[in-house]
Amino acid sequence: MAEQEEKFTSLESLGEFGLIDHLTQNFPLRNASSIKGIGDDCAVIENLSGQTVISTDALVEGVHFDLTYVPPRHLGYKAVIVNLSDVYAMNAMPKQILVTMAVSNRFGVEFLNELYEGMRLACEEHEVDLIGGDTTSSYSGLMLSLTVIGEAEEADITYRSGAKKNDLIVVSGDLGAAYLGLQLLEREKAVFKEDPNMQPQLKGYEYLLQRQLRPEARRDIPEILKGLDVKPTSMIDISDGLSSEILHLCKHSKVGAKLFEDKIPIDPKVYEVCEEFNLTTTTVALNGGEDYELLFTIDLSDHDKIKANPNLTVIGHISDESDGAQLVTRDGQFMPLTAQGWNAMTED
Amino acid sequence: MAEQEEKFTSLESLGEFGLIDHLTQNFPLRNASSIKGIGDDCAVIENLSGQTVISTDALVEGVHFDLTYVPPRHLGYKAVIVNLSDVYAMNAMPKQILVTMAVSNRFGVEFLNELYEGMRLACEEHEVDLIGGDTTSSYSGLMLSLTVIGEAEEADITYRSGAKKNDLIVVSGDLGAAYLGLQLLEREKAVFKEDPNMQPQLKGYEYLLQRQLRPEARRDIPEILKGLDVKPTSMIDISDGLSSEILHLCKHSKVGAKLFEDKIPIDPKVYEVCEEFNLTTTTVALNGGEDYELLFTIDLSDHDKIKANPNLTVIGHISDESDGAQLVTRDGQFMPLTAQGWNAMTED
Repeated sequence: MAEQEEKFTSLESLGEFGLIDHLTQNFPLRNASSIKGIGDDCAVIENLSGQTVISTDALVEGVHFDLTYVPPRHLGYKAVIVNLSDVYAMNAMPKQILVTMAVSNRFGVEFLNELYEGMRLACEEHEVDLIGGDTTSSYSGLMLSLTVIGEAEEADITYRSGAKKNDLIVVSGDLGAAYLGLQLLEREKAVFKEDPNMQPQLKGYEYLLQRQLRPEARRDIPEILKGLDVKPTSMIDISDGLSSEILHLCKHSKVGAKLFEDKIPIDPKVYEVCEEFNLTTTTVALNGGEDYELLFTIDLSDHDKIKANPNLTVIGHISDESDGAQLVTRDGQFMPLTAQGWNAMTED
Repeated sequence: MAEQEEKFTSLESLGEFGLIDHLTQNFPLRNASSIKGIGDDCAVIENLSGQTVISTDALVEGVHFDLTYVPPRHLGYKAVIVNLSDVYAMNAMPKQILVTMAVSNRFGVEFLNELYEGMRLACEEHEVDLIGGDTTSSYSGLMLSLTVIGEAEEADITYRSGAKKNDLIVVSGDLGAAYLGLQLLEREKAVFKEDPNMQPQLKGYEYLLQRQLRPEARRDIPEILKGLDVKPTSMIDISDGLSSEILHLCKHSKVGAKLFEDKIPIDPKVYEVCEEFNLTTTTVALNGGEDYELLFTIDLSDHDKIKANPNLTVIGHISDESDGAQLVTRDGQFMPLTAQGWNAMTED
């Protein structure tokens, strides 16, 4: 976290169009549907599939990220990932993004180079084309607003609203690690503020930090499900926390849910660090957020197809709407699920 | 400009999802292609046309607008309009928008109601559906980032790159008024700062103020051109100023241009107020920006079709690339056109 003396090239020295040319020069168009990228009044997309899915997510300095400990390359990567995650959650494939950036003169070209390098890496991994955006100055800090466009056939698109009674609730990966990664970074930031000579104690926490700083979007899950011939009945990505997302599925599908505490997939490191922070593992897994795993429901008859897959865990089932959404604890108690997840409007 | 005591409902009192529900309740989906609007991980669009055009434009408080004199309803209207203008500039029709907003707790629900009412009006007039977005807090001020999606057949889409030698350069409407509107508002703001009891002197300037505060996007022009059976060879909208946009067309089409000073359409009020401000009318028309008129080129053989239309003015013609882009002054001098227009990265 120590500040180093680094080269600083002001954004003004390039001008708006020069800056855009510079930052986007390493973004080739890969997809057949990307007809026209940056450089006209609009980008143009050829409609190869039946439907287009589109989503937008903003990241605001001080609200969504803290540049004290988030390297710009990771920020760029994450900004793309959180948007792609929404497309995978529709059971669709992302193809294009637009990047809007408001940036103050506190930032130099070198910082933006790193930011865009992170975006480039995410685009490359997910075969997504940068086709447009807007670059403007801001009076305070950095704001990124990305829009992602994806393709899918109508029959494949999975909404939040299709879950039905007796469907199984399935989640990819494991939960809670990203939240603990953030707690670790905040702890080290506080230590550093007290004593700038202290070195951050982050060794051994790599998995948690990676889940926070460099999350992945589950491109593999729609592909796996297609390979297994499973069409989820509903799907959502886990950005605000498992609890909040299950409530979304219940609300949109007009159903209830039973979630089993002992089934929630949790990494051993999460147990360990929860103890260190005196946190309850289940609470962290339910409300932590930023896992960017996929939560979906499948018809009971599809259980055999997915049960051997190590990426997927059945954590509960759908019940009647009148039951509400409940957690069945290890000792058999029923607790109503509540959305205590991170809320961009009311909390940090 | 006097501050009134007004009702203030904090954004926190509604919460993020409550706020979004509240603000978007009066936005019905009108278009057959709008399959799914707000409420899932992505919006879903049915691909009815051959191609999709997409563009994004951000408006940052203090950079693009000043809430001292911009009413929130006008701001919302303008935020939509500047995005739609990019779609019309592709000779396409806008169908959907996504609205991302970062907003500090300085703003109340009443302010946002007005902002969204302005957006709703623009959506209604242009038959555009609000299908998504993101709402987040910010630590300072207001930022809007809109994405607009439009439809067109491949054969209709008009790029910046199709202008060819001897094509006529045509512009819609008249130029320079929006810039003068801004000068008037800035002047009155300065007067008000000196003496808060002074009443703003804005009577008689309605046209200029309207052009600045409530610009229109030229939906009619693609329709008129279609009706006249004219396909422009290139097109761009005038956001940064005529001069800058002609240079864009020349660069992308690899041509030069001759623009005739005495042909530039200018409203009588612009002449009058230029004198008042001791400004050169041509400079204002060339570099003022924010007119949101359409600039396009047509084949010489299409001249007869458009010449009687009062919305359209032929202001010059395309020449060899080696000629560069030139202004032919009233007294027959040749002056190179330069892009002195508003630059979001270097000027306010």
